[in-house]
Amino acid sequence: MPLVSRCLAEFIGTFWLVFGGCGSAVLAAVFPYNAAAGTNPLGIGLVGVSLAFGLTVLTMVYAVGHISGGHFNPAVSFGLWAGKRFPASELLPYIIAQVLGAIVAGGMIYVIANGREGFALTGSNPLATNGYGEHSPGGYALLACFLIEVLLTFIFLLVIMGATDGRAPKGFAPIAIGLCLTLIHLISIPVTNTSVNPARSTGVAVFAGPELFGQVWLFWVAPILGALLAGFLYSSVFSAPSVPEMQRVRETV
Amino acid sequence: MPLVSRCLAEFIGTFWLVFGGCGSAVLAAVFPYNAAAGTNPLGIGLVGVSLAFGLTVLTMVYAVGHISGGHFNPAVSFGLWAGKRFPASELLPYIIAQVLGAIVAGGMIYVIANGREGFALTGSNPLATNGYGEHSPGGYALLACFLIEVLLTFIFLLVIMGATDGRAPKGFAPIAIGLCLTLIHLISIPVTNTSVNPARSTGVAVFAGPELFGQVWLFWVAPILGALLAGFLYSSVFSAPSVPEMQRVRETV
Amino acid sequence: MPLVSRCLAEFIGTFWLVFGGCGSAVLAAVFPYNAAAGTNPLGIGLVGVSLAFGLTVLTMVYAVGHISGGHFNPAVSFGLWAGKRFPASELLPYIIAQVLGAIVAGGMIYVIANGREGFALTGSNPLATNGYGEHSPGGYALLACFLIEVLLTFIFLLVIMGATDGRAPKGFAPIAIGLCLTLIHLISIPVTNTSVNPARSTGVAVFAGPELFGQVWLFWVAPILGALLAGFLYSSVFSAPSVPEMQRVRETV
Amino acid sequence: MPLVSRCLAEFIGTFWLVFGGCGSAVLAAVFPYNAAAGTNPLGIGLVGVSLAFGLTVLTMVYAVGHISGGHFNPAVSFGLWAGKRFPASELLPYIIAQVLGAIVAGGMIYVIANGREGFALTGSNPLATNGYGEHSPGGYALLACFLIEVLLTFIFLLVIMGATDGRAPKGFAPIAIGLCLTLIHLISIPVTNTSVNPARSTGVAVFAGPELFGQVWLFWVAPILGALLAGFLYSSVFSAPSVPEMQRVRETV
Repeated sequence: MPLVSRCLAEFIGTFWLVFGGCGSAVLAAVFPYNAAAGTNPLGIGLVGVSLAFGLTVLTMVYAVGHISGGHFNPAVSFGLWAGKRFPASELLPYIIAQVLGAIVAGGMIYVIANGREGFALTGSNPLATNGYGEHSPGGYALLACFLIEVLLTFIFLLVIMGATDGRAPKGFAPIAIGLCLTLIHLISIPVTNTSVNPARSTGVAVFAGPELFGQVWLFWVAPILGALLAGFLYSSVFSAPSVPEMQRVRETV
Repeated sequence: MPLVSRCLAEFIGTFWLVFGGCGSAVLAAVFPYNAAAGTNPLGIGLVGVSLAFGLTVLTMVYAVGHISGGHFNPAVSFGLWAGKRFPASELLPYIIAQVLGAIVAGGMIYVIANGREGFALTGSNPLATNGYGEHSPGGYALLACFLIEVLLTFIFLLVIMGATDGRAPKGFAPIAIGLCLTLIHLISIPVTNTSVNPARSTGVAVFAGPELFGQVWLFWVAPILGALLAGFLYSSVFSAPSVPEMQRVRETV
Repeated sequence: MPLVSRCLAEFIGTFWLVFGGCGSAVLAAVFPYNAAAGTNPLGIGLVGVSLAFGLTVLTMVYAVGHISGGHFNPAVSFGLWAGKRFPASELLPYIIAQVLGAIVAGGMIYVIANGREGFALTGSNPLATNGYGEHSPGGYALLACFLIEVLLTFIFLLVIMGATDGRAPKGFAPIAIGLCLTLIHLISIPVTNTSVNPARSTGVAVFAGPELFGQVWLFWVAPILGALLAGFLYSSVFSAPSVPEMQRVRETV
Repeated sequence: MPLVSRCLAEFIGTFWLVFGGCGSAVLAAVFPYNAAAGTNPLGIGLVGVSLAFGLTVLTMVYAVGHISGGHFNPAVSFGLWAGKRFPASELLPYIIAQVLGAIVAGGMIYVIANGREGFALTGSNPLATNGYGEHSPGGYALLACFLIEVLLTFIFLLVIMGATDGRAPKGFAPIAIGLCLTLIHLISIPVTNTSVNPARSTGVAVFAGPELFGQVWLFWVAPILGALLAGFLYSSVFSAPSVPEMQRVRETV
């Protein structure tokens, strides 16, 4: 596949991650919208949003994993590079495609949400933005937010490296990776609204005003740091000794 | 398999999609039925209904995918035709079978729901019908409803085309496709009650009165448009260059 | 495997189906137990119980499907016999093992539930028994209850026959079958508390008093009727023409 | 793989089991944190926590199952030894790694939870500790708690032994095993807060004060007893007669 096709796949996949994950949160987390304070008789809540995020990845890795590898996340691209599964030369085009897909998704959520009277960008995390401190959904301080984003992205990349290892069962990686993202959300939405993905954070923050955009830096630094650590660890400790890993990722995702 | 057997499989599969998806919404979304306004202590809510829709497809594609390909949806048949995976000559019989299955399911839901005293076709979306504007569950305007149905069916078909591509892992397509439908519902039930399937919309609307039946046109136009775009895109940009695709769909679904 | 080992597998699998499915309903559907009327802040509700029933089958078919075929349900054994996948001579021992496993599970739930002060067999469906009319959780009349049990078991057996067909993807049948049982529960708990399994109904009804035991007949007749219809239909319309089906079931489950 | 790498995999996997499972309970079971008594409009509840525990195992067995076998639980290591799938000589190093991983996870949950003002170790099960009697979430007596832990771990090990048997479908064991743990939690969180894993119980109890730590003994004795029974049963009744089982576990997990 030419690089441009692979970048298109990354664009679409990251679009879907943000549109499905953040869109389900914006459109369906609480329903009906006029439910009495503290009640949520039909809405999907944090379980539904967690499921939605994971299923965006599960579905898109089966759909275009054989095209682009199915990263949909700059931290994943960095982590796979650190793990010797992805060439440095393609980091930049992949990440540009991912961020653009995320921004288009954020805009589309905004447009559709505006199709209903009374919608407004209110609350601590409008458009399902990520945040810390005052913009942590549950009021967690910066340090706890930084720590959990590093930790969860670290594990996320270990699961990605391991499940796409040539020794793991073939074909199951999208299930393991997608449901790992669901699990990560089940744990941490109250802390940071869950990022582990700089593109996802950026894609909605650009529409949510300068205060929330000003917190996006953390969701680039912490996830990429966690991802790099995991890539280095897996490739140095757990990799099979003699297999040429660089070529393997396309076959096994 | 003769065409008549394949159409029977499509009839049964679409019956199951509508009976399971819309039936779970009608019978179990809120429980007990006399719960105080705004409460829903046991009912399955939007998460349960989303899961039900997806599992109808997951189960039936494993059950009869090897018979008919497992479309259960006129938009899917159109999209696979646009993607060069399904012959134009079989579009009409498939779609007739799908719509008939959906209508029988709608009738069966109505009969069973009537088995309880006090049941009536009330509210904005009786029998889990789809709608826009006044009949959008969350009050979304026509344009937002049209847009999201095009977009979600577009992605749905990309996932179907990709997950059944010869380069994707074998055997997993029903999981990817079924859970994609779950995800689509997690996002959009508040907007249109989620169609992405003209047969599903028609099957229940025929029992719900002229006003709701009068909105069914959107749920033919928008999903088929989205599906055609995805079929053309995938086959022109992402397909493997030299594989004879026309024969491949039966083997890989 | 000798017949006695296979019957032991059926005993354990049906035990697990009833203990996990009915046990989750009895122990965890509503939590905390003293929640105010109409509220259920933590309990698993109908979604959780539906998931539990399905996962009992998914897990046990992977665990002992290669031993006994993984029926865990007299209706399934009858349906597979009608579909020419199971010999008549083994119907009786399989069904005895299934019913015994179910009864032991019902007793074990009763013992554990009694480990908490204040537990009593109250409400319309104590121990998660099945019922119709006065004992339908949502108040559905006998005819609607009969109809939905026939219909759901009919589809359940089609999914079982299809997903274990030699032409379906290998290894996925336990997922399709287990999640089909989840879906069936998502639809119909309010109607009959969902049986589609005579052993499951019997196993808890024996501890719930004569009135509920007196309704068990429906949950033998309706599921077995639906299962027989599906077995005959699949084997006469959808089966591959020349493969020796009788031997295939052991290899493909 | 050298033993030290395999123990590192067990350390990380058990860390993830406790961090994801207990962490989701501590951080997200009820949300927002100031919800009115008896309401829980967005929190993940027992369904979400059950899903989280299961997904920790599903994801990590795909990630490092090919490194260490993916036990993450002293009872599993004992059960596999009883089932002739794991050498006695490696029991101690595996269990030490598991307990250390669990304790680090317990500490990390504590640190992150403290990142929010107002967090305190309160309630009957702080940090998602296990307990019986006064510390049973639903008030179950010691005997019922002991019984259900033996029983659930017994079934858990049967599923592990069966799903990794050479005759079961290849590659699906992590799904069966992970979702079995989800199911086990759906049933029994109200009884003991669900252990079936001595390391998980120990990892959080060390931070929760002497009273809760004093109950940890039950969550070593009961799970290991259930696991041993299952290992002996499976290997004596259900094993294939002539396959060299000792070597098989690495290939089939």
